[in-house]
Amino acid sequence: MSRFLDEKFSALKEYVPGEQPRDKKYIKLNTNESPFPPSVSVLEAVNSEEVKNLRLYSDPSNKALKEKLAEIYKVGPDNIYVSNGSDDILNFAFMAFGDRGAAFPDITYGFYKVFAKLYGIDSQIIPLEEDFAIDENKYFGLDKLIVIANPNAPTGLSLSLDKIEKIVSSNKNSVVLIDEAYVDFGGESCYNLIDKYDNLLVVRTFSKSRSLAGARLGFAIASKEIIKDLEKLKFSTNPYDINRLTQAAGVAALEQDDYYTANCKKIIENREFTANALKEMGFSVIDSDANFLFVKSDKISGLDFYLKLKEKGVLIRHFTDERICEYNRVTIGSREEMEIFLEKTAEILN
Amino acid sequence: MSRFLDEKFSALKEYVPGEQPRDKKYIKLNTNESPFPPSVSVLEAVNSEEVKNLRLYSDPSNKALKEKLAEIYKVGPDNIYVSNGSDDILNFAFMAFGDRGAAFPDITYGFYKVFAKLYGIDSQIIPLEEDFAIDENKYFGLDKLIVIANPNAPTGLSLSLDKIEKIVSSNKNSVVLIDEAYVDFGGESCYNLIDKYDNLLVVRTFSKSRSLAGARLGFAIASKEIIKDLEKLKFSTNPYDINRLTQAAGVAALEQDDYYTANCKKIIENREFTANALKEMGFSVIDSDANFLFVKSDKISGLDFYLKLKEKGVLIRHFTDERICEYNRVTIGSREEMEIFLEKTAEILN
Repeated sequence: MSRFLDEKFSALKEYVPGEQPRDKKYIKLNTNESPFPPSVSVLEAVNSEEVKNLRLYSDPSNKALKEKLAEIYKVGPDNIYVSNGSDDILNFAFMAFGDRGAAFPDITYGFYKVFAKLYGIDSQIIPLEEDFAIDENKYFGLDKLIVIANPNAPTGLSLSLDKIEKIVSSNKNSVVLIDEAYVDFGGESCYNLIDKYDNLLVVRTFSKSRSLAGARLGFAIASKEIIKDLEKLKFSTNPYDINRLTQAAGVAALEQDDYYTANCKKIIENREFTANALKEMGFSVIDSDANFLFVKSDKISGLDFYLKLKEKGVLIRHFTDERICEYNRVTIGSREEMEIFLEKTAEILN
Repeated sequence: MSRFLDEKFSALKEYVPGEQPRDKKYIKLNTNESPFPPSVSVLEAVNSEEVKNLRLYSDPSNKALKEKLAEIYKVGPDNIYVSNGSDDILNFAFMAFGDRGAAFPDITYGFYKVFAKLYGIDSQIIPLEEDFAIDENKYFGLDKLIVIANPNAPTGLSLSLDKIEKIVSSNKNSVVLIDEAYVDFGGESCYNLIDKYDNLLVVRTFSKSRSLAGARLGFAIASKEIIKDLEKLKFSTNPYDINRLTQAAGVAALEQDDYYTANCKKIIENREFTANALKEMGFSVIDSDANFLFVKSDKISGLDFYLKLKEKGVLIRHFTDERICEYNRVTIGSREEMEIFLEKTAEILN
């Protein structure tokens, strides 16, 4: 830290992304990436003509992307906001809508509490139930920014659409942000509710189901007014936030959406296969609607399991939070990757 | 604006980027882009293998880019910060170092005042001299965040290294940010002073001299401690801010730096050619060390000149600020583009 940094940031603890070790080649089941490459349409769209055009600024209005997303989700282009990764939308949401405080679960995406601290927002941390479920009743009438990942991470558990609607409708004077990063793997999206509720902000990403984690592309669906607020912050911080190649890749991905839908189906199959195999080995496996499993074994500590797998060339995500330190989050990769993971797991347990 | 937006942002006026009209094909001399494509090394680096790898997150530590920049600028990798465009660094600088106020010229990059408003920072706006020069004496001992574009925009005038040093050395307890977006076109960079002054923050971009405006890549050179502050804010807002393809393009561009140096030489030649031709037509032309000229004519108003050129298919940048509304900023493009610009200008004046 320099002696110049504004004191209000001195105690801020930044987010720690999943590790990206370079010492050897790992089977990466630690950051919820897709095992499938982007569609052929993306490979075709990012061509040398586009690379030559990098001399020119990208479109700050993201017209093509917004129109394509609007077409697919059957909303207006002005109900769509696009960003350099969905973290950027979460960041703006805390900045714009957190002035009366924020509420989110104790066990969820670890970045929410960082955003809250960054903006000095008073956070109401609501513990998950014993079984890691979210009790929707605890979010009724809070009158502050509510942030719920659905499905939740790292548990993979999701809330039904009617429960989400109850939370949204009981907090009409504050923004309810539903982070649907993992919804394409089995959850129910609530974006159709935006016509009914002007306080609903749905956040999505191309990183997981659309195989574009490295392109950085997120989007939000919400009322025109909320979208305008996000645009105001974008144009007051970094208007050209999405580069040309990512804009082209995003549009191209949406043109081949069937490919990604089929990939999601495969992930779901691999997830069920892996969950069953782990249960047979005596693991507790939380029911997951996401592209990961949250698992623990009575035979080995969470930390040990993570470390021994790493030794064997398989990376999974371990969390140090006391409540979940016996668990690990395992990204669902290809069938082959999951078979190796299971094989190494069996070796470790025996 | 939604009814949920934090009131402190309600009066915020966002930045307005240069227009990107789509009604016809223009000669674009309005956003200071390079007329030259990225180097062959960049075209080779953004290949289909890299596009396939978009399924994986980008390196949040930007190791390869930092090491390459450190090698070129002969500083340590921990003296380097890289970002999704240099606007993002300016944004963080105002956020991190503006708590005791900020000072910058009245006529400069229009975004500075937006950042200041965004964070509620008290701004001391220091008028340029009659001839648009910056009087360095007016920046001595201000004890607040000082932000100077060198060369300045939209004037193109630059401050000598010794004058910059005097500003930095007389403000030892606050950050002095020198925005060197245009320095490769004839200015003197001050980044060598970072060993001597821990309060100096030099901001650079790949958008102008390195033909990568559409890739979004900026960087900063400063003391390790200032770099750590910027990293803290990155990891508290958007850790994966630079996508994989831009990281690859950035490294590749630096591997062919001679190409860009030669392009800068051509831009300088075209600038001198254009300046002389405009002076012959009776224009006032400010001495520019940047890739643009700031010009006015007694024969036509600034607005008229801009509008008539637009009609004829040439876009230049007009500003509405009263002090400079008779001027226009003309980006220096290829020799051919400048010849067309001059031809259309002559038509308009006659």
